[in-house]
Amino acid sequence: MSRDISAKGKLAEYRRSIDNIDAALVMMLAERFKITQKVGAFKAEQGLPPADPGREDEQITRLRRLAAEADLDPEFSEKFLRFIIDEVIRHHRRAGSES
Amino acid sequence: MSRDISAKGKLAEYRRSIDNIDAALVMMLAERFKITQKVGAFKAEQGLPPADPGREDEQITRLRRLAAEADLDPEFSEKFLRFIIDEVIRHHRRAGSES
Repeated sequence: MSRDISAKGKLAEYRRSIDNIDAALVMMLAERFKITQKVGAFKAEQGLPPADPGREDEQITRLRRLAAEADLDPEFSEKFLRFIIDEVIRHHRRAGSES
Repeated sequence: MSRDISAKGKLAEYRRSIDNIDAALVMMLAERFKITQKVGAFKAEQGLPPADPGREDEQITRLRRLAAEADLDPEFSEKFLRFIIDEVIRHHRRAGSES
């Protein structure tokens, strides 16, 4: 029984750290989308296409390197960036079709 | 021509901010996976299942609230958390099958 309680305590402690990190991730994503919204409006204004494959390749190469340095699976960092970029492009397309 | 140069400068400035945020996101994700690796090892040791739907529901409710406060689409915050959790569960399953 006391072993169960300490097991629960240990799990709860890990989860508090995960919750703190998730709050920080959400806040930074909010900030990132504020910037990409500006980029989207700016691209639409300048007649630039929403996606930019050359820029994306650079971002992926850089993030894979940073991930490796931080002991994060580089494959996952690439998947993560594509997940974010897909959402950004959806936003840009939506903004473009509204204008 | 000078309009092109200033347009490029503006885009480059936005991109530097995005790159800074992405580096921070990758570092925090690295830290998050370090913790979930410990959670995975701990769950395997205690014979607990990798997924915990009750915990996930709580995380989603909380993150949607935080997202709304930060002007981030709550739908996206939920999609983001599921994307991360799917990766964590993949890690746990892999770790479980190794032991």
